[in-house]
Amino acid sequence: MKSDNKIFSVLGGDKRSYYLAKAFIKDGYEVRCTGFDMLSQNCCTLDEALKGDILIFPVIPFSEGKKIATPLSKDSLDLETKGNLLADKIIFSGKTEMLFKEFPALKKDKVFSYSDREIFSVQNAVPTAEGAITEAVLNSDKTLNGSKVLVCGYGRIGKVLSEMLRGIGAEVTVSARKSSDLAWIKLNGLDSVVTGEFAEIGKFDYIFNTVPSLVFDKEKLSKMKSDVLFIDLASKPGGVDFKSAKDLGINAIHALALPGKYSPRSAGEIIESTIITILKEEDG
Amino acid sequence: MKSDNKIFSVLGGDKRSYYLAKAFIKDGYEVRCTGFDMLSQNCCTLDEALKGDILIFPVIPFSEGKKIATPLSKDSLDLETKGNLLADKIIFSGKTEMLFKEFPALKKDKVFSYSDREIFSVQNAVPTAEGAITEAVLNSDKTLNGSKVLVCGYGRIGKVLSEMLRGIGAEVTVSARKSSDLAWIKLNGLDSVVTGEFAEIGKFDYIFNTVPSLVFDKEKLSKMKSDVLFIDLASKPGGVDFKSAKDLGINAIHALALPGKYSPRSAGEIIESTIITILKEEDG
Amino acid sequence: MKSDNKIFSVLGGDKRSYYLAKAFIKDGYEVRCTGFDMLSQNCCTLDEALKGDILIFPVIPFSEGKKIATPLSKDSLDLETKGNLLADKIIFSGKTEMLFKEFPALKKDKVFSYSDREIFSVQNAVPTAEGAITEAVLNSDKTLNGSKVLVCGYGRIGKVLSEMLRGIGAEVTVSARKSSDLAWIKLNGLDSVVTGEFAEIGKFDYIFNTVPSLVFDKEKLSKMKSDVLFIDLASKPGGVDFKSAKDLGINAIHALALPGKYSPRSAGEIIESTIITILKEEDG
Amino acid sequence: MKSDNKIFSVLGGDKRSYYLAKAFIKDGYEVRCTGFDMLSQNCCTLDEALKGDILIFPVIPFSEGKKIATPLSKDSLDLETKGNLLADKIIFSGKTEMLFKEFPALKKDKVFSYSDREIFSVQNAVPTAEGAITEAVLNSDKTLNGSKVLVCGYGRIGKVLSEMLRGIGAEVTVSARKSSDLAWIKLNGLDSVVTGEFAEIGKFDYIFNTVPSLVFDKEKLSKMKSDVLFIDLASKPGGVDFKSAKDLGINAIHALALPGKYSPRSAGEIIESTIITILKEEDG
Repeated sequence: MKSDNKIFSVLGGDKRSYYLAKAFIKDGYEVRCTGFDMLSQNCCTLDEALKGDILIFPVIPFSEGKKIATPLSKDSLDLETKGNLLADKIIFSGKTEMLFKEFPALKKDKVFSYSDREIFSVQNAVPTAEGAITEAVLNSDKTLNGSKVLVCGYGRIGKVLSEMLRGIGAEVTVSARKSSDLAWIKLNGLDSVVTGEFAEIGKFDYIFNTVPSLVFDKEKLSKMKSDVLFIDLASKPGGVDFKSAKDLGINAIHALALPGKYSPRSAGEIIESTIITILKEEDG
Repeated sequence: MKSDNKIFSVLGGDKRSYYLAKAFIKDGYEVRCTGFDMLSQNCCTLDEALKGDILIFPVIPFSEGKKIATPLSKDSLDLETKGNLLADKIIFSGKTEMLFKEFPALKKDKVFSYSDREIFSVQNAVPTAEGAITEAVLNSDKTLNGSKVLVCGYGRIGKVLSEMLRGIGAEVTVSARKSSDLAWIKLNGLDSVVTGEFAEIGKFDYIFNTVPSLVFDKEKLSKMKSDVLFIDLASKPGGVDFKSAKDLGINAIHALALPGKYSPRSAGEIIESTIITILKEEDG
Repeated sequence: MKSDNKIFSVLGGDKRSYYLAKAFIKDGYEVRCTGFDMLSQNCCTLDEALKGDILIFPVIPFSEGKKIATPLSKDSLDLETKGNLLADKIIFSGKTEMLFKEFPALKKDKVFSYSDREIFSVQNAVPTAEGAITEAVLNSDKTLNGSKVLVCGYGRIGKVLSEMLRGIGAEVTVSARKSSDLAWIKLNGLDSVVTGEFAEIGKFDYIFNTVPSLVFDKEKLSKMKSDVLFIDLASKPGGVDFKSAKDLGINAIHALALPGKYSPRSAGEIIESTIITILKEEDG
Repeated sequence: MKSDNKIFSVLGGDKRSYYLAKAFIKDGYEVRCTGFDMLSQNCCTLDEALKGDILIFPVIPFSEGKKIATPLSKDSLDLETKGNLLADKIIFSGKTEMLFKEFPALKKDKVFSYSDREIFSVQNAVPTAEGAITEAVLNSDKTLNGSKVLVCGYGRIGKVLSEMLRGIGAEVTVSARKSSDLAWIKLNGLDSVVTGEFAEIGKFDYIFNTVPSLVFDKEKLSKMKSDVLFIDLASKPGGVDFKSAKDLGINAIHALALPGKYSPRSAGEIIESTIITILKEEDG
C-alpha cells in the first residue's frame, strides 16, 4: 500500500491526536480531521473523514459503545450506523481489540496497533518519564536533587526515568529481578536492589513504580518514610495497595496517561512516526 | 555568640519559613514561630516571639512599612511600635537593607543576610533549576528530551540548570562571555556560544535566561522560532523585552521565586543551614 | 549439585584465572590451582588439581591439542593421557566446543560455558570498554574529550562504551540498524546514524567498531580523516579491511582480549560470579 | 602589536611544542621551528629562528643554564652568546621566571607566560584528567567502573577528573575544604567529604590527589586498603608521604606532566590558543 497519495483521516482523540494530525500535515501528507473543533477550525464532518484511505483512531478508540473518544469536541462522533464505511480502510488505533469487538467484520490485515510497537514504547517512555518527574515536583515540597529515589523496574520507563533522575542529581536506586538487568543497573553507576527485597525501603524520599503487579503491599508501605511520595506508573490496578497507603497517610499517586497530559505534541509526533514506520514496512 | 542555648524565633514568611522552623526543631534547637497559623497550631504571639534571642525574618522582610510579610497568616505582624524590642537581638533576613531602612538604629554587627552568602546562592540554584524545568514542562506541549535548549549565562544557576537539562536528554547550548567559562562549557561536553552572538537563535525550542541585563531585545526575539518557550530567571526587570515578545506572539515567562513555589522545604532547609553556618563562623 | 563443600580446581589460564581463583578463595571456597607458578607458590600438581570436584578451564581451554593454555607457567599441563579423570566432573570453560572436540565422551549436562551467559557478556563489556578507551589514549596524541567519536553498533559493548566516552566529554555518534536501537540512542542524548550510512564519516577523530562484519570497506576508509584512529573490537576477522587501511595510512588497531590485558582482576571476578550463578541455578 | 604578519618561532620543547607549531601553521601563521629534527625535516637553525618576531619557548624553557630543552633533537640550542638577539622580541614561555633569571635585561612587558592564564589551566585540566585515568588503568588490574574512588581537591583538575570518573561509572567521592565547594560536589551528585577528615579512607580502591600539601601522611596511609592505587597529581613534592607509602607496600605514583605524555597534540593546541588569546588582548 503506497501511502504517498493517500488521505489520512484523524478521528477524534485528545491533544495527541491534534498534534498527530499537525505532524502529518507538516510531513506533506493530505489530512482530514474531525473532532477537534475546540482547538482548530479545520475540521470536517465524520462522513467526510471516513472517506479517507487511512483512518486513525485514538489510543483508546471509543469512549462508550461505538462513540469515538472526543474530549476536544462538543459533538459526538458515533459510528453506530457507519460500520460499513470502515470496510477496506487501513485503520490505526492503540487498543485495536476494542475495534474488533465493536466491528467484528474488520479484517486483521488492515487494522494496526501503533501502541504495540517496540519503537512506540521506547519513544513513549520519554514523555512518561518527564511527566513522572513533573508529578514528583508538583506533589512534593522538596527538590529531587539530593533526594533518595527508588525506581522499581528496569524496563523502558525504568531505564529512561532512572537516567533522568540521576541527571537531575537524585541518588537513584533501581530494582529489577533478572541478574543481567541488575548487572546493567550497577554498571550504569546506579544502586541496584532485587525487586521486592527492599531492606532499606525506609530511606527513600520518592518511589516510582513501573512494575504492573502488587509489589508494594501493606507490609512494605508500613516501612516507608511517612512523607515519602509514591508515584505509580504501572497501568491499572497498579503496583501498590492504594487503600493501605491512604490508611497509613502515604501520598500515593496513580499517574497514568502522562504523555497526553504533559507532552501531547511529542506524544502525537511519536504516534505519527510509528504509523509511518508501519506503513513503510507494509509497503516494503 | 553560642547558639546552643538560644531561642530561635521565626517571624512570618511563606512555606520556606515554615520549613526553616521545622528544620531548626529537627536539629534540636528551641524555636518560636509566629505568622503560620494557616499551617500549624504551634504559633505564639509576636511579642512572645520577639523575646527570642535570634530573630529570623523572611527573605523580603516586610510586605508594607514595618509589617512582616505573612502570607500564611490571617493576622498581620506589625513592628511599628516594637522597634525597641529588636535592640541587641541577632537578626537574620534576606534583604537586610529593608531592615536598616525601617530601623536605622539596628547595629550592623548584629544583622546578617543569609541570602548574600555564597553557600546559600550555590544551594539555592538547585530548587531554582528544578523549578525552571517544571515551568518548561508545564508551559509547553513538548518534551525537553530531544529539544534544542539555550541556557544564557554560566553562573550558578546556569551551571546547575544546564547539567540538569542535559541529564534529561536535551541538546544544550550554553552562552557565556568569559573565555574561561566558554572553555568550561565545552569541556563539560555542552555546546558553547558567546552571550549575545546568537547566530543560530532560530533553532532553539526553549531559551532559559539567567543574565540580568537586556540580552534578548526585539531584534533577537524576531529571529526566534515562533513557538519557542522563553523562561527568564533573571531578577526584575529580567533579560528580555517582554513587550516585544508579546507583540511577536512569543511565550515569555518571567519565572521568579521558584524555590518558594516548587520546593519550599528544600529552600527553607537551605536557609536554616546557611544561618547555622553563619552562627558557627561568628562563634569561631 | 551443592557447591558448598566442593573443591574448585582452576587449571591454567592467564591472570584472569589467577584472580578467579583468588575470588573463590575470598568467597570461602576450597580451591586448588595449577599453572600459575610464575605468580604464586600455592600451586599443586595437575593430578592433584584434577581430583577437585569442579574443574575450571580458561576461556580458550587449550593452547595446542590437549595442552591447557598456561601463559603463567613454565611447565605444560597436558591432558593427553588424563581424559578419564575428567569423567563425572563438573567442568567450566569459555569455548566448551574445544573441550568436546578433544574429549567427545564428556557429558553435555556436566560441562558449562561461562562466556555464553548474558550476565557474563553484560559485565565483560565494562573491562572491554575501559580497555578500548585506554587503547585510544595510548595510540593517539589527542584527548578524547572534545573529539568526535563514532561507535559502530549498539550491543552491550556499544552501549557501555558510548556512555563512557560521553562521560569523558567526547562528542559521540552511535550507529545501529534497528529503529528501536536508533530511538534509544537518540533519547539517551547521543547522535545516531544508521550503520553503514555514514555520510559524515570524514568528521570523526576516533572510530570504535563492535560489529562483526565488514562494515568499513575500502570505500568507507577512503573517506575517513587521514589521522583517524580506528579501534576494532569485533572478533576476528573484525569489521574493517585492515589491508586497505594500511595502504591508506590509517591507523587501525584490532584490539582483542582487552579484559585480560587491562583488567584481569575484574575479568576473573566476572567469571567467578558467573560460575557461582550457574551453580546456583543448577542447584535450585 | 598586530600578530598577523609576524613570524612565530618555536624554539625546542617536546611533542607539545611540535604540535603547537603545527597548530600555528594550520591557522595560517608563518612559523619557524628549531629543535624537532627527530620528528620533522622543516627545522631551521637557531639563528634563523631567533630572527622571528615572536619567540616561543617550552613550558620549562631551559634544560640547563641557557640551553633550551630539546628532547626531540640531537643538537643543543644554546643561547649563551645570543642574549642580545632576544631584545625587543615578544617572548612566550611557561616558567618565565627562568627566562628573567638567565636574561635579566628582558623587558617585563614583552615576556608572557601562557601557563599562568586561567584559560590555559582550565583547558589543560582535560589532558591531565585523561592521563590520570590512563595511569589508573595501566597501574591496576581492576576496572574503574564499579570501583570506589576518592578525588582529593575540587579545583580545576578535581572538577574535570571527578566528572570523567563518574562518567566511566566509578563511585566517586570528592574532598574539599570550602563549604561552597562541598555544596557544589553534593549538588553535582557526587559524595563529598572534608579534605583531611577521611573517616572512610579504607574503602577506596583508587585515590587521586590534586592538593599540593601533605594531606596523606603516614597515619592516613596506614588506614588505606593495602591494594589501593594512589595517584598524586600535585606538583612536587606532592601531597603524599611517598616514603611511608613504600614502607607500607602502597602503590603511590607521582604522575606529573601527563598532558605531554598522553595528549601532546591537545596540549600543544591549548598552548597555541592561549598565545593567540594573549596576543589579541595585547592588540585590543
